[in-house]
Amino acid sequence: MKVYGKNYRAIWIDSDTDSIKIINQLLLPYKFEIKTLSSTDDIYNAISSMEVRGAPVIGATAAFGVFLACKEAANYDNPRDYIENSIKKINSARPTAINLFHATKTIDDSITNYNDINKIISVARTLSIELAEKNVKDCYQIGLHGLKIIEDIARQKKDKTVNILTHCNAGWLACGDYGTATAPIYLAHDKGINIHVWVDETRPRNQGAKLTAWELGNHGVKHTIIADNTGGHLMQNNMVDMVIVGCDRMALNGDFANKIGTYLKALAAYDNNVPFYVALPTTSIDPSINNGIKDIPIEIRSENEIHFIEGIYNNNIISIRTTPENSPALNYGFDITPAKYVSGVITEKGIFSATKEDISMALD
Amino acid sequence: MKVYGKNYRAIWIDSDTDSIKIINQLLLPYKFEIKTLSSTDDIYNAISSMEVRGAPVIGATAAFGVFLACKEAANYDNPRDYIENSIKKINSARPTAINLFHATKTIDDSITNYNDINKIISVARTLSIELAEKNVKDCYQIGLHGLKIIEDIARQKKDKTVNILTHCNAGWLACGDYGTATAPIYLAHDKGINIHVWVDETRPRNQGAKLTAWELGNHGVKHTIIADNTGGHLMQNNMVDMVIVGCDRMALNGDFANKIGTYLKALAAYDNNVPFYVALPTTSIDPSINNGIKDIPIEIRSENEIHFIEGIYNNNIISIRTTPENSPALNYGFDITPAKYVSGVITEKGIFSATKEDISMALD
Repeated sequence: MKVYGKNYRAIWIDSDTDSIKIINQLLLPYKFEIKTLSSTDDIYNAISSMEVRGAPVIGATAAFGVFLACKEAANYDNPRDYIENSIKKINSARPTAINLFHATKTIDDSITNYNDINKIISVARTLSIELAEKNVKDCYQIGLHGLKIIEDIARQKKDKTVNILTHCNAGWLACGDYGTATAPIYLAHDKGINIHVWVDETRPRNQGAKLTAWELGNHGVKHTIIADNTGGHLMQNNMVDMVIVGCDRMALNGDFANKIGTYLKALAAYDNNVPFYVALPTTSIDPSINNGIKDIPIEIRSENEIHFIEGIYNNNIISIRTTPENSPALNYGFDITPAKYVSGVITEKGIFSATKEDISMALD
Repeated sequence: MKVYGKNYRAIWIDSDTDSIKIINQLLLPYKFEIKTLSSTDDIYNAISSMEVRGAPVIGATAAFGVFLACKEAANYDNPRDYIENSIKKINSARPTAINLFHATKTIDDSITNYNDINKIISVARTLSIELAEKNVKDCYQIGLHGLKIIEDIARQKKDKTVNILTHCNAGWLACGDYGTATAPIYLAHDKGINIHVWVDETRPRNQGAKLTAWELGNHGVKHTIIADNTGGHLMQNNMVDMVIVGCDRMALNGDFANKIGTYLKALAAYDNNVPFYVALPTTSIDPSINNGIKDIPIEIRSENEIHFIEGIYNNNIISIRTTPENSPALNYGFDITPAKYVSGVITEKGIFSATKEDISMALD
C-alpha cells in the first residue's frame, strides 16, 4: 500500500544482491527505514526482535531465511546439516506463529529431494519468493471476500460512515501487502466507501497506535486511536458497525490465538450484537490442534515490555519506565478467542463459520 | 496505609495553618510529595489536573475547597455570592464524580442557615473534616464486608493464594485511607490471608501501574502489573478468583460508571464464572439516575492523554509521544458496566445485589 504516495511491500528480495529487504517496523511510526537482511542470523534477529512481525510476514521472512541458509550452506562440508540447524534456529525465533513453521517446512520438504547445493539454493529461492507472493495474493482475496460484508453494512447504513474496530496490526506491514484484517478496509476505501477505523492502541507493544494508525494514515483512511479499554464503551453506544481482527493461529474448532486483548473485544461485540470477524489466510489454521483454548501455546514475553514504553522525545526514540521500581509484571503476548464469539472467518477461499465442519472445509 | 513504613492518608487538614495537605498523585510512583492547597484555585487545579483523583478523595478535596472559599469570602462585601461562585467553579473541575457535587452541596446546605461569616467558616471547617473522616470510616466498613468474601474464597482454596484482579486505582490514595476496591484486600492481607493482586495498567493514564502498584508494594501486598488486555486470558485460565473494582457513580438500577475498560473485565468475569464485585460508599449512588447506560454522562478527556505517556527517564519525569503525528485519538474516561454482570455491591452498609430493589435499600 502507499507510503508518501508510493506503493511498498513489507518484504521483498533485492534481485541484484539476492539479499532481503524489509521495512524496519521497530522504527515506525517515527522513522521509515528499509533494512537489508543478508544472513540467517539477520533473519533470526529480525523475527525475534520484531523488526518484522505479523504471522504472514514472519512466514515470508522465515522462508527467505531458509534460502539464505542454503546459500551459506554452500561453504560447509555438510550443507544439509547446516541447513537443518539453521531451520531449527529460525523456527525458535517466535513460538506462536504457525506460519513460521509452515514456511520453513514447505521449503525444507522440497529441497530434501536434491543433493546439488546449487539446485537447492535455486529451489529455495524460487519457493521463498512464491511464498511471499502467495501471502499478498491471499490477502487480496481476503480483501475481496471481506469487502462484500462492508458493502452490505454500507448499504444498510445508506452510505453513512462504516465504523470498523481493529486490534493490533493485521495490516499490510504484517502480510507483505493489503493485510488480513485491513484488506477489506483498504479495498472498501479504494472503492470509495466511507470508512472510519477505531484503532486499538494494543498494549504493551502498541502495534495499533504505531503501525496500524501509520498504515491507515499513509494510505488516506480515516481512523482514530483509542485505548484498548475503550472498545466496549463504543460498542455499547452503537459506534462500531463491525470488528475485524487478524489471527496468529486458528484451531480446527474455530478458537483462535491473536494479540492479547482480542478476546475482550469479542466479548464486547457479542454483548452488543456487533459482528465480529477474524481474517486470515488458511495457512494460519493449524490442523494438528483441535481445541484452541486447551492446546494453543501462549507466548510469555519479557516483563520489560510492560515496564518500559517507547516513544519520541526531542526527535529521539527513547524508552521510559512507567511502573514502580519494585513491582513485577507479567506479559502474555496472545489470548484465545472462543469460536462461539466469531461471526465469520474471512479467508482467501471465502467466508466460513467458526465451526469444525466449516474450518475443515476451508482446509481442503 | 503504609509508605516507607509510616501510616499516611491521601488528604488531611493542617491544624496549624488550616491549609489542606495532599499527596501529589501526579508524581507517583516516581516521587513522594506532600503538597499544600491554600485557596479554592489550588483546590480546583488539584482536582482538574488530577493531583487528587478517585471519587471519595475528590469529594473530600471539594469539601475542603468550600471551607477555603468561606475563608476567602470573609474579604468580600457579599460573601454568599463569592461562596456560591466558588462552589460552581469547584463543581466544574470534573464532570463525572457524583461525590464532588454531593460534598459541596452538603456543606452549602448547612452554611446556608448562617449569616455570620465566622460561623460559616467554622461550620464548613467542621463539616469538611467530618466528610473526609467519613470517607475513611466508610472504606474501613467496606473492607470488613469485602473481607468476608475473600475469607470464603481462601477457605475454599484451602489457604492457597487468593488471586484478585483490579482495574484503575480505587485504593487508599483515591479515598483517604484503605480504599474502596482495595479495602478488603488490605484487611485480608493484614489478617494474614495469602493475597496476590493482578493490577491492570489502566490506560491511558496508567493509574493501576502507577498508583495501585505503588500502594500495594508500599504496604507489602504481593501484586503483578498486567496490560489491560490481559485479564480475559487470566480468567479463561483460572488465574483469577475474584475481580473487585471501584465506582465513580452508580445508578439506581445497579449500572455503574468506572474507569474506561471496567466493562470489558466484567464481561470476561461473567464469561468465566469469576465473581465480579464493585466496592463503593453509598454516597457514590446517584438516586437521580435510574438507568446507568442511558443517563450517566461520560467524560471525554484530552486526546493528548493517549498520544503522550509519562514516565521516568534519567531520573526525570518526562512525556513522550507514542503515536503518528497525524493520527487523531479519542479518550473516553469511563464506561458503564451493566448491573447484570455484577456479583455484588460492597458498601459500608453491607453487600447488596445490583438490583433496583437492593440499591434503594442501600440508600435508606
